[in-house]
Amino acid sequence: MTNATDPRKLEAVSSLCKRRGFIFPSSELYGGINGFWDYGPLGSELKRNIREAWWNFTVRSREDVVGLDATIIMNPKIWQASGHADTFADPMVDCKDCKKRYRADQLCEEQGKKLGRDGKRFVLPEGVVCADCGSKNLTEPKAFNLMFKTFVGASEDASSETWLRPETAQAIFAQFGNVTGSTRVQVPFGIAQSGKSFRNEITPRNYTFRSREFEQMELEFFIRPDEAVELICGKVATLADNPDLSTPADDWGWEVWHKYWVQQRRIWYHEKVGLPPESLVEYWQEGDELAHYARACVDIQYAFPFGVQELEGIAARSDFDLAQHQKHSGKTQDVFDEALKQAVLKMDDAAKAAFMDKTVAAWVARGKVADDAKAFVEKLFEGRYIPHVIEPSAGTDRLALALLCNAYEEQNLTDDKGKTDIRTVLHFHPAIAPIKAAVFPIVKNKPELYDKAREIFKGLQKHWNVFWDESGAIGRRYRRMDEVGTPFCITVDFETLEQGTVTVRDRDTMKQDRIAVGDLRAFLESKIAP
Amino acid sequence: MTNATDPRKLEAVSSLCKRRGFIFPSSELYGGINGFWDYGPLGSELKRNIREAWWNFTVRSREDVVGLDATIIMNPKIWQASGHADTFADPMVDCKDCKKRYRADQLCEEQGKKLGRDGKRFVLPEGVVCADCGSKNLTEPKAFNLMFKTFVGASEDASSETWLRPETAQAIFAQFGNVTGSTRVQVPFGIAQSGKSFRNEITPRNYTFRSREFEQMELEFFIRPDEAVELICGKVATLADNPDLSTPADDWGWEVWHKYWVQQRRIWYHEKVGLPPESLVEYWQEGDELAHYARACVDIQYAFPFGVQELEGIAARSDFDLAQHQKHSGKTQDVFDEALKQAVLKMDDAAKAAFMDKTVAAWVARGKVADDAKAFVEKLFEGRYIPHVIEPSAGTDRLALALLCNAYEEQNLTDDKGKTDIRTVLHFHPAIAPIKAAVFPIVKNKPELYDKAREIFKGLQKHWNVFWDESGAIGRRYRRMDEVGTPFCITVDFETLEQGTVTVRDRDTMKQDRIAVGDLRAFLESKIAP
Repeated sequence: MTNATDPRKLEAVSSLCKRRGFIFPSSELYGGINGFWDYGPLGSELKRNIREAWWNFTVRSREDVVGLDATIIMNPKIWQASGHADTFADPMVDCKDCKKRYRADQLCEEQGKKLGRDGKRFVLPEGVVCADCGSKNLTEPKAFNLMFKTFVGASEDASSETWLRPETAQAIFAQFGNVTGSTRVQVPFGIAQSGKSFRNEITPRNYTFRSREFEQMELEFFIRPDEAVELICGKVATLADNPDLSTPADDWGWEVWHKYWVQQRRIWYHEKVGLPPESLVEYWQEGDELAHYARACVDIQYAFPFGVQELEGIAARSDFDLAQHQKHSGKTQDVFDEALKQAVLKMDDAAKAAFMDKTVAAWVARGKVADDAKAFVEKLFEGRYIPHVIEPSAGTDRLALALLCNAYEEQNLTDDKGKTDIRTVLHFHPAIAPIKAAVFPIVKNKPELYDKAREIFKGLQKHWNVFWDESGAIGRRYRRMDEVGTPFCITVDFETLEQGTVTVRDRDTMKQDRIAVGDLRAFLESKIAP
Repeated sequence: MTNATDPRKLEAVSSLCKRRGFIFPSSELYGGINGFWDYGPLGSELKRNIREAWWNFTVRSREDVVGLDATIIMNPKIWQASGHADTFADPMVDCKDCKKRYRADQLCEEQGKKLGRDGKRFVLPEGVVCADCGSKNLTEPKAFNLMFKTFVGASEDASSETWLRPETAQAIFAQFGNVTGSTRVQVPFGIAQSGKSFRNEITPRNYTFRSREFEQMELEFFIRPDEAVELICGKVATLADNPDLSTPADDWGWEVWHKYWVQQRRIWYHEKVGLPPESLVEYWQEGDELAHYARACVDIQYAFPFGVQELEGIAARSDFDLAQHQKHSGKTQDVFDEALKQAVLKMDDAAKAAFMDKTVAAWVARGKVADDAKAFVEKLFEGRYIPHVIEPSAGTDRLALALLCNAYEEQNLTDDKGKTDIRTVLHFHPAIAPIKAAVFPIVKNKPELYDKAREIFKGLQKHWNVFWDESGAIGRRYRRMDEVGTPFCITVDFETLEQGTVTVRDRDTMKQDRIAVGDLRAFLESKIAP
């Protein structure tokens, strides 16, 4: 049952998720609420593990990234500066006959057509019909802002109106000055944040994939503008120089930093959460797909049962965001760079003039204004600039769904006697498995053995989420754990009392090994956090 | 500088929080937004540690509690069932002269008076004046619902209106059936959730204490009704029986369970996050302070610089919440209890009749309806009931602030030469300290020593958030770490190369010990997670 070829896959996964407590429809007791999903006992552990794996890799294991935990409700001026207030909208179209509502671009695409534009107006191509009733009687598509509105304070008017954040990224830009002012970070460095975001999607769909409330894991990694790199290093490394992407170097330009983060994120998906490299597709946006300020954007995609869809976008956003906030707040977002200042001090006037001329010409050739280029270079000569940014932005819920789909397998087994059986198993990476190990006493009625099993269980419980199960045949206990992706089942038997060893049964191979009780912690640690 | 006696304390703490990256005003770049706070690089680690300590104690280290991670936006019927839509309001009063707005109850209290009530109307006592301009010209207080409103879907009308959750607890009740249906939990058991909640406070104040967006850590622990305990055990233990609170027993009634959770939470505050027992005050609500459905409620309070205020409420809420959801959803919230069924099977008709009579009489004596009592007992005889609940509900941000206030100290030091100096130190428990240890090479220019220090640093970084500092005198490096509460500073010196030991300097005692490099992990582990 592969994602791409079996339409039953998503149904099988979502059914397991409901049955075993991974994911429930939000508010199901009252008929639910479209586009909202809750994570149950196992799902909440799965999501905690994903968050933790991301934070460890992105923040704790690096010296050049710090964390942030900002509010969901912020001053509305942030969304005016970022452009969300004006332009964060999808085209919406209604069927005048059956009253069904669609995202106009999706409706067109499903009918092999493409939504047109005439300036700010959307134009439905000829022949598009309501997907439900077939009527051609559709409204003109209109832009619908996806931000959820609310009111802060006791009056409900424009002065108190604000929005729930549609992304976690903007708070990072808005707090850029406070972070640089309170820590020792120096460009290149990053600020990371994970948390809930909200988008009032017109048509939430594909199970948890396109939800109205979702979690993001976003990093803004600030780098020097290429011109600063050139002044400091005398050159700017590009991908054509074939740089060693495992070790950041001073001479990297934005292109190399961008590729570095694409590679880092792929390493994470593979080594830390267990998505096979071949399951991921890199989609490099081209020409008119790119936002006007973006220099490059890669989508890391996964082949879901409902199609190949984005897990993460990694964009090179130039200095667009900080420059917008500088403009709207009137407060400088410059940083001072000592290495740049020192490099400039070594230049004579002729070198400076040449650099100025070259830079202005290059900017003008890219369609920019000469005066802006001059002001930028003059700042550079003072050792100052607005950092550029690389933004790896991942969806936690999308990843949770990809991990579930990737892990899910129904195996047809035949036992010694020729009896066939289906084993449902989630092949989670141990680091993200909700339960790391289960402990079973082989029998319940031998106190010495039972107590030994409890002792082992309590010892492991100090370090991980482990599960105790004493009921039913061992084979059935294994199957219950297979279905929720528990990588190891530890059985305490009579040999444990004699030899001090237990059997550890591997979920994927179903093989059993005997391991000394004293080695259990190190064994699990080596599997969970290799 | 103690909390209670020095008004400068809160200012000193908030100034440190801003300076060192614990807490910033949200959206400060645009003038902020009243009642919202962001956590910076160190604050986000502090909050992560608090959450993690709570989750480990409440969920992972227990076999009778499971987790949940539900949405912030839910079906509005949940808030109608819970009563929040109608009654979750504070009395608001405006000064007609200076336009200043107040919470009427707080304004009265500050002037030594008490807000009156006349049915649903609030009545201002004689003589209350505007705290700002002194005017007596105040509006009549009116109820203001504290839930933030928003609209789901593309239309903005009553049919699409809902609210941001004002507490995480209700999702636990709404998902009760899905959790019991997908796991093996049996009463007594709990469901825990931590996450953001939102209250549109009329007057946010006291730094982060009363914010409009805040984080909660809530447990709903479901227990048998006392009548079921009596049928199963033949008696119901109360506090008068002086039960051993360390080990739950089958015969515990609600009163003992409630006291058990008060004790568990006090243990957590002391042992896991380091609030001294004497810093906590237990406030037992009395008579008319209790909500009508609550049997008991204890506030665990802390002496903040602005007064003794609640950190956590622990309420015995009977079956109120699940019964409300049963009534509003039309779906049973009963559980089946095999032990109860077995106990009832052993009763003869006379015993059943006697139990029925006794229970009905007791309910009627408590002001309840006889028919309700009968229906309840008949359900019990089938082995079924709606569980009662004990709710320990804690505020994450309040706790973070209490931990900061508790940890903060300015020490007057005098060195050997009589020179005096002030040392600012945060005495955090190692488990919640944002940075667990710092590693210093004693000099920068000896490659062998420097590399050894890097190796030690990278080794510890696999397990904890550790900090590298190679700049400035060791004494200054210590002070920088003292100020952010790092419990241990590890210095790599020439002896390290010869003897394989490092100095570990204790933040609180400022004493240094030599420890073998190979023992560092175990040493830190014993301090961080004892």
